[in-house]
Amino acid sequence: MTERVISSAANPRLKTLAGLRRRRHREETGLTLLEGYDELRLALDAGLRPRTLLHCPELMLDAPTQSVLVRELAEGGVETLRLSRAAFEKVAYREGADGFLAVVRAIDRAPSDLSLPVDPLLLVAEGVEKPGNLGAMLRTADAAGVDAVIAADPVTDWGNPNVVRSSKGTVFSVPVATASTDDTLAWLSRVGAHLVAATPDTDVLHTDVDLTGPVAIAVGTEKHGLTDRVLDAAAVRVRIPMVGKANSLNVATSAAIVLYEAVRQRRAVKPSVRDPDYTPG
Amino acid sequence: MTERVISSAANPRLKTLAGLRRRRHREETGLTLLEGYDELRLALDAGLRPRTLLHCPELMLDAPTQSVLVRELAEGGVETLRLSRAAFEKVAYREGADGFLAVVRAIDRAPSDLSLPVDPLLLVAEGVEKPGNLGAMLRTADAAGVDAVIAADPVTDWGNPNVVRSSKGTVFSVPVATASTDDTLAWLSRVGAHLVAATPDTDVLHTDVDLTGPVAIAVGTEKHGLTDRVLDAAAVRVRIPMVGKANSLNVATSAAIVLYEAVRQRRAVKPSVRDPDYTPG
Repeated sequence: MTERVISSAANPRLKTLAGLRRRRHREETGLTLLEGYDELRLALDAGLRPRTLLHCPELMLDAPTQSVLVRELAEGGVETLRLSRAAFEKVAYREGADGFLAVVRAIDRAPSDLSLPVDPLLLVAEGVEKPGNLGAMLRTADAAGVDAVIAADPVTDWGNPNVVRSSKGTVFSVPVATASTDDTLAWLSRVGAHLVAATPDTDVLHTDVDLTGPVAIAVGTEKHGLTDRVLDAAAVRVRIPMVGKANSLNVATSAAIVLYEAVRQRRAVKPSVRDPDYTPG
Repeated sequence: MTERVISSAANPRLKTLAGLRRRRHREETGLTLLEGYDELRLALDAGLRPRTLLHCPELMLDAPTQSVLVRELAEGGVETLRLSRAAFEKVAYREGADGFLAVVRAIDRAPSDLSLPVDPLLLVAEGVEKPGNLGAMLRTADAAGVDAVIAADPVTDWGNPNVVRSSKGTVFSVPVATASTDDTLAWLSRVGAHLVAATPDTDVLHTDVDLTGPVAIAVGTEKHGLTDRVLDAAAVRVRIPMVGKANSLNVATSAAIVLYEAVRQRRAVKPSVRDPDYTPG
């Protein structure tokens, strides 16, 4: 097969592709951009199939090795476009572009579309705005073995290229979903998850409650925290002890601390079958 | 007293001030920039005394209230300069400037200058590059009550405006120091701190070791981890259990998870006198 090559940065297709940086354009097309070789590999491992792969050998860190992936995808029927450096940099959104950029289906899943194991560990992020924080939470959720991350009343969509980037591609491996706060609360109640709300306004420490069993840990925005709807619906409110002057942990850090306390407790109850090092016996 | 006003963005003093964004200029002058009303308040509470305060009432979120701080500093003998919006934005380094920018002494402290309590909890960040990660670690260190944060063989200086900003000013409230890795290790040994190295290359989990007593938790770069010198010098190596596909937590997140496990263990041993809610009895 003959591959199409785009060498002019003025090529009209590039303009359409660059448009995916805008949320409206993502919602209209149901597509988003995934940038970076490592991120793409991770997403492919998670079962993602790109619509189109844009590549620029000139920008690749290791073109001889990495070009194999381009060939594999092309042979698998994925449209591939080779771009000149000028053309690639017009669509790329990060500094240090590495010559890989894929057009992929944006994730748009409702909580009810998720399939959950027994005793799931869930993370609910309400109203979180900064793509970097959502991405960081996904990396942690991936590492901690969280079964799903729900964006409740989100300001940022999962397809936001900066979420995709800061998640290191885990947005495609961790089950994520989106819903209004009300629908999220109704769904949590239906699946029987105990809602644990992280908030400074309680005397109960996160280490003092039982985080085994079906649990959903909820975090809110850095500025305003969780809404009253979530706080009122929670089975328990917990705080992370803080002694400092700034008195505010980053929201993704807070989520990580509570999630890993859950991991600690759950491992103590039953050495996790999720642990790759675990040998039953 | 009559306050100086700079209304032209071409004023030569602005060029000198903007130069503090460069590390060399910070090292030559021993000065750095601190931006933002909240960050400045936090640093002032920590005992910081600015050399110069630049302010722009036009950009303030709440000029009537916040201008009080300008007056107080001026009355305390701090030089204050009122800038036009154009002039202020020439020196400001962040989006959404809020009209407060202070010239302050950059922190340049050796570990031996630190005074430590009994059984200190220390964080050692070796070679960490990204200012945002250093800043995030400082916020966590502040919240967790870490007694000092040491940058070993640092690529980024504590005066980097993006460290100052992402730390939300905690770089001025948490005791920080800088040294070579060798000097850091020698100092840790001298003060009797048990060095706990966070690394994926071990079977020991961070929750399975004793983190009470005098402890220094060491984290390395995201790309290469800790150097062999630190790994070899460590009393124990610990890993955070990870089950995901990306298999790498953000370095600041890793530090937070291990630090808060230390906080959990230390509170269990003796309810902390550091906890503002703690009443001896």
